[in-house]
Parts: sequence; C-alpha cells; structure tokens
Amino acid sequence: MTDDPDADADALVRRVRDGDLRLHELEDHADADAAATARRRIVESDTGVDLDAVGAYGFPADRADANIENMIGAAQVPMGVAGPVTIHGGAVDGERYLPMATTEGALLASVNRGCSVVDAAGGATARVTKSGMTRAPVFRVGDVAEAEALVEWVRENEDRLREAAEATTSHGELTDVTPYVVGDSVFLRFRYDTKDAMGMNMATIATRAAAEAVEESTTASLVALSGNLCTDKKPAAINAVEGRGRSVTADVVIPRDVVEERLHTTPEAIAEVNTRKNHVGSAKAGSLGFNAHVANVVAAMFLATGQDAAQVVEGSNAITTAEAREEGLYVSVSLASLEVGTVGGGTKLPTQGEGLDLLGVAGGGDPPGANADALAECIAVGALAGELSLLAALGSRHLSSAHESLGR
Amino acid sequence: MTDDPDADADALVRRVRDGDLRLHELEDHADADAAATARRRIVESDTGVDLDAVGAYGFPADRADANIENMIGAAQVPMGVAGPVTIHGGAVDGERYLPMATTEGALLASVNRGCSVVDAAGGATARVTKSGMTRAPVFRVGDVAEAEALVEWVRENEDRLREAAEATTSHGELTDVTPYVVGDSVFLRFRYDTKDAMGMNMATIATRAAAEAVEESTTASLVALSGNLCTDKKPAAINAVEGRGRSVTADVVIPRDVVEERLHTTPEAIAEVNTRKNHVGSAKAGSLGFNAHVANVVAAMFLATGQDAAQVVEGSNAITTAEAREEGLYVSVSLASLEVGTVGGGTKLPTQGEGLDLLGVAGGGDPPGANADALAECIAVGALAGELSLLAALGSRHLSSAHESLGR
Amino acid sequence: MTDDPDADADALVRRVRDGDLRLHELEDHADADAAATARRRIVESDTGVDLDAVGAYGFPADRADANIENMIGAAQVPMGVAGPVTIHGGAVDGERYLPMATTEGALLASVNRGCSVVDAAGGATARVTKSGMTRAPVFRVGDVAEAEALVEWVRENEDRLREAAEATTSHGELTDVTPYVVGDSVFLRFRYDTKDAMGMNMATIATRAAAEAVEESTTASLVALSGNLCTDKKPAAINAVEGRGRSVTADVVIPRDVVEERLHTTPEAIAEVNTRKNHVGSAKAGSLGFNAHVANVVAAMFLATGQDAAQVVEGSNAITTAEAREEGLYVSVSLASLEVGTVGGGTKLPTQGEGLDLLGVAGGGDPPGANADALAECIAVGALAGELSLLAALGSRHLSSAHESLGR
Amino acid sequence: MTDDPDADADALVRRVRDGDLRLHELEDHADADAAATARRRIVESDTGVDLDAVGAYGFPADRADANIENMIGAAQVPMGVAGPVTIHGGAVDGERYLPMATTEGALLASVNRGCSVVDAAGGATARVTKSGMTRAPVFRVGDVAEAEALVEWVRENEDRLREAAEATTSHGELTDVTPYVVGDSVFLRFRYDTKDAMGMNMATIATRAAAEAVEESTTASLVALSGNLCTDKKPAAINAVEGRGRSVTADVVIPRDVVEERLHTTPEAIAEVNTRKNHVGSAKAGSLGFNAHVANVVAAMFLATGQDAAQVVEGSNAITTAEAREEGLYVSVSLASLEVGTVGGGTKLPTQGEGLDLLGVAGGGDPPGANADALAECIAVGALAGELSLLAALGSRHLSSAHESLGR
Repeated sequence: MTDDPDADADALVRRVRDGDLRLHELEDHADADAAATARRRIVESDTGVDLDAVGAYGFPADRADANIENMIGAAQVPMGVAGPVTIHGGAVDGERYLPMATTEGALLASVNRGCSVVDAAGGATARVTKSGMTRAPVFRVGDVAEAEALVEWVRENEDRLREAAEATTSHGELTDVTPYVVGDSVFLRFRYDTKDAMGMNMATIATRAAAEAVEESTTASLVALSGNLCTDKKPAAINAVEGRGRSVTADVVIPRDVVEERLHTTPEAIAEVNTRKNHVGSAKAGSLGFNAHVANVVAAMFLATGQDAAQVVEGSNAITTAEAREEGLYVSVSLASLEVGTVGGGTKLPTQGEGLDLLGVAGGGDPPGANADALAECIAVGALAGELSLLAALGSRHLSSAHESLGR
Repeated sequence: MTDDPDADADALVRRVRDGDLRLHELEDHADADAAATARRRIVESDTGVDLDAVGAYGFPADRADANIENMIGAAQVPMGVAGPVTIHGGAVDGERYLPMATTEGALLASVNRGCSVVDAAGGATARVTKSGMTRAPVFRVGDVAEAEALVEWVRENEDRLREAAEATTSHGELTDVTPYVVGDSVFLRFRYDTKDAMGMNMATIATRAAAEAVEESTTASLVALSGNLCTDKKPAAINAVEGRGRSVTADVVIPRDVVEERLHTTPEAIAEVNTRKNHVGSAKAGSLGFNAHVANVVAAMFLATGQDAAQVVEGSNAITTAEAREEGLYVSVSLASLEVGTVGGGTKLPTQGEGLDLLGVAGGGDPPGANADALAECIAVGALAGELSLLAALGSRHLSSAHESLGR
Repeated sequence: MTDDPDADADALVRRVRDGDLRLHELEDHADADAAATARRRIVESDTGVDLDAVGAYGFPADRADANIENMIGAAQVPMGVAGPVTIHGGAVDGERYLPMATTEGALLASVNRGCSVVDAAGGATARVTKSGMTRAPVFRVGDVAEAEALVEWVRENEDRLREAAEATTSHGELTDVTPYVVGDSVFLRFRYDTKDAMGMNMATIATRAAAEAVEESTTASLVALSGNLCTDKKPAAINAVEGRGRSVTADVVIPRDVVEERLHTTPEAIAEVNTRKNHVGSAKAGSLGFNAHVANVVAAMFLATGQDAAQVVEGSNAITTAEAREEGLYVSVSLASLEVGTVGGGTKLPTQGEGLDLLGVAGGGDPPGANADALAECIAVGALAGELSLLAALGSRHLSSAHESLGR
Repeated sequence: MTDDPDADADALVRRVRDGDLRLHELEDHADADAAATARRRIVESDTGVDLDAVGAYGFPADRADANIENMIGAAQVPMGVAGPVTIHGGAVDGERYLPMATTEGALLASVNRGCSVVDAAGGATARVTKSGMTRAPVFRVGDVAEAEALVEWVRENEDRLREAAEATTSHGELTDVTPYVVGDSVFLRFRYDTKDAMGMNMATIATRAAAEAVEESTTASLVALSGNLCTDKKPAAINAVEGRGRSVTADVVIPRDVVEERLHTTPEAIAEVNTRKNHVGSAKAGSLGFNAHVANVVAAMFLATGQDAAQVVEGSNAITTAEAREEGLYVSVSLASLEVGTVGGGTKLPTQGEGLDLLGVAGGGDPPGANADALAECIAVGALAGELSLLAALGSRHLSSAHESLGR
C-alpha cells in the first residue's frame, strides 16, 4: 500500500489481471476504498459500463466492512422527512420527524399528510406489546417416539439450554423454547430478548450453542440451524400470530370535523373502505397483510435507519382497523413482527446513523431495549399515518363518486 | 432564486421560520437542491441533530423529483457485485455481474460463492413463465343477485373494458379481468402486460378508466381502486398462486464432484436440508415462502437497480427445490411474483441506473418487455446462487456434525 | 349361497376361520348383507365387542356397494330439519326445509332460529357465481426451459386436451387448463363443468386421458395424477381464491325491528361482533375461514344429502360480512369452494336420497347442473341462517353485558 | 301422552296443524320418538316427500336428545373396518380394527391395504406430542395503552383466571392464557387440558367465567366469547402451528422388499411423489395441508366414533413426509389439530359408541385423557395407512409409466 489510493487501486487492478488476486480478495491487500475503486474499475472494464455515480459514495469504505463484501460503491436512495408528528409511546414521547428513504413518488407526501392529521388529533398512541427475536433449528430424530422424548427433554432442560445459549452473549436472554414435531423432524423455536439489537446474529450464535447441548444429551442430530420456523425473511403465519422482533400497535381517534375538513371524507366512508379493502379483500386474497400499504412505510424507514431491507417481508404482516364513532374515526395499525435494532447491522453507517439520531434512538437504550422499542413505535406511527392518508384518499374519491351518482 | 444555492437555502429557511412557507412547499420556491438544503437545516435546527452525511448525496436533487417529496438528502447503501455468473435465460444470455446493495454482512460473499459454483456447472438456466401486473378495484353492489349480474356483464364486456383501459396508456395491454364475489363486494382483478415498466402506476390509471366504464353501465359503485386482491406489498396467496409481475424460475444441475470439492458436502445432505427446512419447516410455519433467504437477494438487487423496496414482500414468495441425482444436485428457485421494471420508478436515479447498466438491461427492451424479463432472470439466478450457498453451508455443517457423531 | 342369509354368514365365518377367505373378499362369495353380517361377527369375536347397533342398519347392503368396502353395518347420525326458509336463488325459488344430520346439540335450534328471522325478512337471496371441478396432475420436466416449452404447448393445444378429456365422459366439459411452474415440476390445473355430479371421479378420469396426451407429445413425465393444486380435501388458498365446485353466496337484509325484537340485539352490535371476530380474529389467526361456524351447517347438510364428509374442509372456506344500515342489518355468506352433487357418490343411499328429495334436488337437474346449483344455494342459505343466529347470540350477550356495565 | 306412540304422533300433528304447537316444541309434549314421527309426517305432508328411510332409525330418539333438535330420524352412513393394524402408541398398544363410516368408494380398501403393509413392517409408532383445547374470547379496550395494560394484567393474574375457569368444571384444567393485541381488540387464547372430552363446551363455559373475571377487574369489555383465534371449524394457521386438541404423529419404516412386492413401487418413487405433490404442490396451492388425503380417514373415523364432523376441517391440517432410505421407506403423518373425545358429544350414541368400543377407547380413560390420546393415535395410524396406500398407488403408476417411456 502507498499513500496514494489511486495508485493502490491501479496496483490491485494489475494483480487481478495477472491472476495474482481474485476479485473478492482485494480488501486483504489494500485499504477498503482502494479495493472498492479497483474492483469498480475492473467491473467497468469488463462490462464497458460507467460506474461513476456508484463510485461517488460519501463515507469511508471501511465503515461498511461488516456490511458488505465485494464493495464497488454505494446506492444512493433519496431521503426525506415526514412530520413532525406527536407520539405518545411506551418508549418515546413527543414530536418526531420521521426519516424515510424511498424512490416511490407521493409516498412521503402521503405520510406527511397523515402525520399532520394525527397531530391535529393530538398525536398517536403506540405500544410494543410483545418482543423477542427467534431462531428455530431443525433436528432429525429416529422416529416419533424419540421426537416425544426430545420434546420432554427440552421441557425439562430449559435451564440448561438457557445456560448454554446465554454463555455466548453479554446482552441476550433466552426467554423460551417451544418444540414442534413433524414426523422425525423436531423444530425448537428459541426466543430471545436481544435488547436494542435486531438480534438475528445474537440469536443464531446462542442457538448454535444450545443446539450443541441438545445434540450432546439426546439422540437428536442437528440438520439446519435455521429450520424456517423462525421465520426470517419469508411471509409466515407463525410470525403474524406469535410475533417476531417487536409486536407494536399505534392508534388514534381523529375528530369528525378533522376528518371532514382535512381529509374531505367521513369516518363512515373510511371505515367502509377499510372493511371492503383491508379486511374482505385481504381475506379473499389469502393474505397475511390486512392493511393498505404498511410495507411502504416500513421499507422507507428501514432504509433510512439502517435496518435489514429483506425484513420488510415480515414488517408487512400488519392489520389495520378503522371504526366510525360518533366522535370521529378510530384507526389502528398493528405490526406483528417488526424486526428492528438501534445497534449493529446497518445502524452505524453514516447516513443511517443520522436517520436514527433524528428519531433520538441511536445506540443502546436506557434501559436496554428502550431505543429499539422507541424505533418500533415511531415506525408504527408512520405506518398509521400512511394508512390513514391512503384510506382517506380512497374514501374521498369514493365519496365524491357516490355524490355524483346521487346527483345523476 | 439567486445563483447561490446556499443563499437560496438561507432565504427559504427564513421564510419557513416566518411562517411564510411550509416545509413541504420549498420546491415550489427554489431549485431542488436548495430546497433540500433548507429543509435539512430546519430539521437539524429543530432536532439538534447533524445531518451532514445525509446531505452529502451525489446527484442533482431534481433527478429525484418524481421519487420523493420533502427531500433532505439520501441514504447511502453499500453496493457490491457478485459473479460474474453465466445465465442461459429466455431474455438474457451470457455472463453477468450481479449488483447488490445491502447492509447485511456475508450476503455478498455467500451469493458470490454460489455464483462461482453455478459457473463451474456451466451456468444456470432461467425463464419467465408468466407475466402481468394486476390491479383489483372493489365495487359495492346491491345484493348477490346484482353481484352475479355484474360478473356476467364483465364477462360480456371485456372488450369495452379493454378499450377504456388501453386508452390511458401507450404501451400497456389489458390481458384479462377476473371477477371475485364476496357478499355485496365485487372485486375485478385486471391484469396488464406493462412491458418494461413495473407497471403499478400504469395499471392503476388504466384501471381507473375501466372502473368508470363499469360504474357508467352497471349499478356497481366503486369503493376503492385497490381492493387488496391485486395484491400489492402484502404477502398474499393470490400472488404466490397466480403470479404478479414476473413468475420466473432458475435452475441448475451441479455435478457431484463440484458439490463435494467446492461446497464440502453432498447432494444428499443439501437435499435433506432443503426438505426439512424449506419444505417441512415452512409448511409447519404456515408460510408462503418455501426458501432459505431469497428475500435477501431480491432486496439487495432491488436496491441496486431502483426497484420498489416494499415489493420485496411479494418477491419473497419463492419455492426452492433440491434433488439428489446420480450425476449431482438439481436445484431450482421459482419466484412467483417478482415485480420489476427497467423504466420509470427509481430506475433513472444515477446509481440505480448504473446498476441496471451493469446487467445490460437499462431502459426499454427490444422487443418491449425484454429488459424487464432479463432483469427478472438475473435476479432469479442471484437467488439461486444464494440458496445454493446457504443450503450448502448448512449441509456441510450438518455433514461434519454427522461425521463427528459417527466418530463418537 | 342359500336362501338363508344367516346360514350364509355362518358359512363365510367358517371359511375365514379356515383361512380359505380373507376379510375383504366376502362380497365375492355371498350377498352383501350376509358378507357384512359375517364380517361383523368375526370382528365381534376377535375383539369381544358387541356391534348390534352397527348391524341394525336399515337398507340393503348392496345399495352401498359403490360406497364402501369391508362393510359391517352403518353409523346412524340423528337427522332433523331447520326451516322452512324462503330462498330466492338462481336455481331454487321458494320455501325449503333444510335437512341436517349432526351430533352437535343446539346446532339445529340455532339454524332454525336463523331461518325464522330470514323468513321474517322475506327470505334470502342466493347465487352461484362460479362453478367447476378441478384436478391438477404434476409432471416432471428436464429443466425450466422444458417447463416453459410445456406451458407453451399446453396453451396451444387446449383443444387437443379437451378432446382427450371429454372422450371419457358423456356429461363433463373441460372449461380450462391453467399451468403452474415450480422448478422442474409443472402442474396443470384442469377445470370441468361436471353438471349435477360433484365430479371428482369424472375429473380424475378425464384428466388421466389428457395427461396421457401430454406425455405422448411432450417430454413431460406424469408423477401424480393429483399434484395437490386441485386442491381436494386440504385447506388451500387456491380454492378460497379461485373456487372449486360451486362458489356460492347468500345474503339478506334484516329489518331493524326484526333484529331488535327477534334477536334481542342491534345491527350495530352484530356488525361489531362480525368485524372483531370473523374479520380481525380470523386475520390474526392466519385463517382461510372468515366466518363463525359455516362448517357446522356444511357438515350437517352434507351428511343429510350424501355429500363427501371430507370435503367439509373446503366447504369451510367462507367469508361472512355484516353491515349495519339505517334500515337494518345486511348479512352475507360467501362459500368459495362448495363441492356438491345430486347424482353419484352417497346421493343414492336411501336416507341421503330422501334428504335430497326434501330439497327437491335429487338426481339430474334441468338443465343439467341446476340441481347441484340449487343444493349449493340451499346450503348457503343454511349457512347464512347459522351465521346470523350465532352472531346475534354473541351480540345480544355483548349488548346486555354492555348494558350492565353502563348500569354500574 | 298415551302408550301408543303412533297415536301420540297423530295428536301432535293435529296440534301443529291447529296452530297450537310449533314444530320445534314437540319434544315438550310427547316422548322423543313420537315427536320425531310427528315432525316427519308434517314435513312429508308439507313437501310431498317420502321419508321412510330417514324414519327407520335404530335407536331410541331420546338417546339423541343432547345431540339434535327438530329430529325427524337419522342418516345412515355405511360403516366398515380396516385392519387390524398393529399400533405402538403412547396410549394404545397392540392390534386394532379401525372403524370407518363413509360413502366414498375405494377408501376402505385403500386404508386396508395400507394397514396390511404397515403390519408387514411390524406396525406403526404413534405419539401425542401436544394437547389442549382452546377458546379465545375477544375484548374491546379503549386504546392500545389499555391493551398493553390488559396484557400485563393477564400475565400477572393467570392464577385468578385459572381459579375462575376451573370453578366451572370438575375435570378441566387451564394450562395457559396467551394474549394477542390487534388495535383496540385483545384476544385471550385460553388452553385447557380437557382429559377424555373433546372439550369445546367445557372450554367455553370455563372461559365465560374467566372472561367475567377479566371484565370485573379491568376496563375491557367482552365482545364475543369466541374471537376466532380459538380456532374452531375454520382452517387456520394458528391451529396448524400451535395445535388444538391433540397434535399427534404416526410413523413407520417399510422394508424395501415390502414396498416392492406389496406396493409394486420403490421407496424412491414414493418419496418423489410425496415431494412433488404433498410438499411442492401444497406449497404452490397456499395450503395448510401437506398431505394426500388425511381428511378422508379423519372424516370416516370421526363419523364412526361420534366425533364432530365439522372438526374434520382442523383434522386436515396434516403434514406427510416420506424418505427413501437404504433399508426402505420412512413415512410419517403429523396431525396438528385433531380434536377428539371419548366422552360427551356423539360418543354415547349407539352405533358410535360401538365404534369406540371397537378401538377399546369408550368412556373415560385411566389416567384421564388416555382414551382420547389412544383414539388420536388410532386415527393417526389410519391416516398413515391411507397416505401410504395412495402415495404407493400414484408411485406405481408413475413407475410403470416411467418404465413404458424407457421402453419407447
């Protein structure tokens, strides 16, 4: 390595062309920026494609060394803010700007409108009602008699499994283990309190240790450390039912006059849209998502705060309810499996860290877990604002269409 | 506006502080960069948070004007490449580097390993087997007798609906309309060929026109332009079954010696992991995703190519199969509802556009739709590489664990 | 054989004891009643259990020869009637007693109460909105390129498949074939109009012929004549979404005073119960059944009319809606996949045949299919009555509980 | 009442015709048989239909007074036996004839063939791995802050809820209460050990008492005693995942030569059919049932033993696995939610009681619960035999078809 990153990159390119290095080994032989530059040049030369914009990233590449391999630069996703919106949460209280990164036009504007209406109603309430990151290895046993014996063993040895699991982590706590039997496969769903970490890695490492303890003392043989009953990054009823990460709900009552003046519709029209679209339509679709577009807000806030974009999948397991009352419109959004963290993963990247700062939830919370709870509550309120705004837009069109047809 | 963006931003900040402008109106009174700067400063000042990194975005803000409102900057997500990998597709043929943007460490390395093994086997085959973007409005009718009449009318007037829908678009084609009745709600699922566009907007606009035609000629009243049978951004069986966007499959046979030497396991061990984890585990979880981590690849390639991150939800509706054969290991991944486009949306942003260039699929294809097909095939092959690599990692651990226990 | 059935049975018992005959071969050597008697005696003697009641069946055993093997007698299930109730259907019009066979106390009384309320409202409307019995074989192909070719071939050769399929049946008509690809498995979902037959056998036989045509002309190899995309006797979203057998809806508006006087509750209370229980609760449960107890009515009417009891599974894929209106309560029940027939199967057994007679739907309809449509509409109205009655019971308790708490 | 039932029936008919009695009141004024006769005559006369067969039931009508209202007779369903088959269960050990009542031709023969193959392999193993009947009322609370408080209260007051619930029952035990929050709806899923009773009524009564305790001490208001998270008689992932009634598995290894000689196929062919049909096909169908035809056996054994026919719905939530091993074929069937009882419900009806006797499980077990466990294990083994037989039939056809195509 020299002091000249450009020269370092040139040197790397030559070594790759000479067959001396492979494309994924560059970081071992130069600093991260030079490696990324060299790799980008090779790819540009191989493909004839110009990657200037990708190369114009605004952070030291070694800040991302735990986030990516084979780096060539960065994707830049426009970021904006909705709000501020007032949140009466269990872990957050007060006004917050909601950072969102997206490429979907109109999304920010829609959530922003929703925030303004929520604020006109005095703010939204939010609570985390269940919490825990899960990992579920699958074991093979001899037959169902052995499966029953394993289930029994697990029930009697939860302390031992806890000891093994918790020896691998300074923060995580094993809260429970649930066995599921299918033929000669036994799945053990471990659930952990991972505090402010999203916790997938922590849960995996702890579960590996616990799985070894199972193998040592029983006839069971580990087949896969994840047996898909976790369930990570796949739509799954087990998450929608039992939760994963945070189960969080936000709700609000919008006074009738606010609905009429600001949203140009009525509580009744919004409730009808919610019933026919979010309940009956989703039911008919065989869906696990009974909402209008919660995934939009989850995705945008995940990108802005360094969460795992693939976990938008579970984040969309949400149910929206709307009820017309005399005083106005009650709306709620319940996200069953929102997997969030304020430490680890992408949270320490510069732009994402600032996104967390904006919400006041960066780093470990006090008490531990409080920041991740707060982040979950902020996302839930963002989702609530998004639902309200879209339902109202549909409802007002429906209403005007109804008016027109009455006028015919 | 002056020629000095910094001064322009200052002026905007003052006007907001004076109550003259609202935070979302800045773009109407200055260029996009000054507006973003002003908004960022106000948010910084309101919250006491430093947003320098967010502000250090590398593209003219007006390039994002159709992608975001209330912009303050950009989130920067590390981007890398896996491959190159050889693809024998219906719309793409040859070697491709796969661009991926992610914050999940080890993902790129894992997909890269998978690509290398796929290449050692001569490359992967890929095909789009179904295609079409859907939108499903919900109508209210008087009772089920009217519902039946509406279903009948739709079946007899598909040409008229096509005419109304296609009048709104120069490219899109309405391919079919399927009615679903639930009580006095009737859902009409419109399916369009939207060529190289992901097509959600095109489908929405065309469906609005068709819905007006329905209202004009029948007793039905439109309640919501999307009735959730579409289904957009929610996990839903209707997408997993009938497809949405592209239904695309990639497969490969890995010779037995490659599995053993490069993946340190056997076809049989990988097939067992796939069965117990991806099939039995997902079955027990009540899942719509019978795969290991397809969403990871979908999310990373979506971010790198300007797709809608919230549509990772449907992208994860994938089934992975693995079969041990005498000659080696057959593996396939079938994504039922991969919604992709190479024009519109986030595809024209600078970094994302370069991601598409890398795959050789930017802009409209020849024939129309060919580029989006090619993008779908590239993502499917990336998903295949990711599945193969993770299953092998689980399988090799399983195998060594089995060896150890045999050695006891 | 002699003229004395008792002696014949004795002879058979001896031959089994001598090892001359096996238990399942008795019908080949005696008439059906003697065979059943002999088999019952052997089982009684082997187990020391008295089977007098089972032996006291009231029909000639040979009437059941196409319905059962190894017969020893019959299970007797109490049968009653609900109604009469007025049905304004597409295929049935007027008052009908609904025959129901069940062992669940209070079910008949509940449905009866519902019928009486429906009648007070002038009767229920019912319509079959979709119809068709399906069978979906699974084929193996070489790879996804062959899968795509097979899909193409099927789309181009639907006429040829129709010809092959329809050559096996005098009544059935192939209405469409839909291909689904998962890796190297290709599923073809054949849909038939089977007129008044439930049609599973007809569809299976016709599909076997069509599958042979596929194998003759393509590289595909049939793996299983049913590939579970049919889907028969398993809960499956594909049935809930696309229907199987009859998709049928019944609805009614109950005047407000009838709700109050006869059901002791209000439209609003019933609508709230329906929303929180049938919509939100079922959504949270990951359910395909958004109703209170439709399966109860389906099971009881299936048993009373000779339908296949295992198809109660699909029959429970139903959505109930309830809306409070100024004039009263709108309630609907939509059954997506009600598989019924009025010819074949258990319909010709004596008690079951009388059940069909009671509804006026025994045998082939005029036009063909009309009787099965009418049966579907009758069951839908029974289900509607059952839903209404149970929701009202819950609503009135809720209401009184609310009153009490107001009084506190 | 006179001593002449026929005269009594005549008298009742006259009183109904005179408007003195209503059709559902007859049992209050005559014995059950006279009432049934009178009602049947009235229905016959109203409809012009002959109900002789329905009237020829073989048990005193008052034996069914807790099972039906408005009785007119009985449906007679042919009953046969499969087996005997050897069961190595946790609660049953030895040979059993399996009683089955059905109208589906070939079912008994198929299960019988399966039993014979299972026996040739030395019998099947079976175990109940989880047990508990559930009821889940839904409560309304003020907002999500109150929901959180209710969840907290429930967790701290489980003893109090147990006391209230168990005060209503001499046998049942409350094993746990799990809260689920969706907006302002809170569902509490109560799980009970109901011993040998299927337990739905016991659970409902106990839960009513517990719900009153909730209402007394919190702000929550009961909306419906069943909130559909139970989930009774609807297909629901919560049952497939968490179980309801008994979770029971049966498995067996069939030696390779038995597969070849008795089933005319190979372990490999059966495993392939199982994968492509029961796993991949069901996955693609969005199913909760990963089996071939478990519902058939569940329905037939439910009818023969007095179980609730509508609970066949949950009984079909089963996963079948098949693995080809060197020594032969491993097959298992796991039923997640088999709701069975040997006391109460239809179990005391004469023919159904004999069905239970045949299995040696009638009445209360020793220890309590043992008989219902044994019944569950018997049904699981019946389901295993049915799966094995059907998969083999498909596999042998597939094999011969493969042979033919090899011969081309």
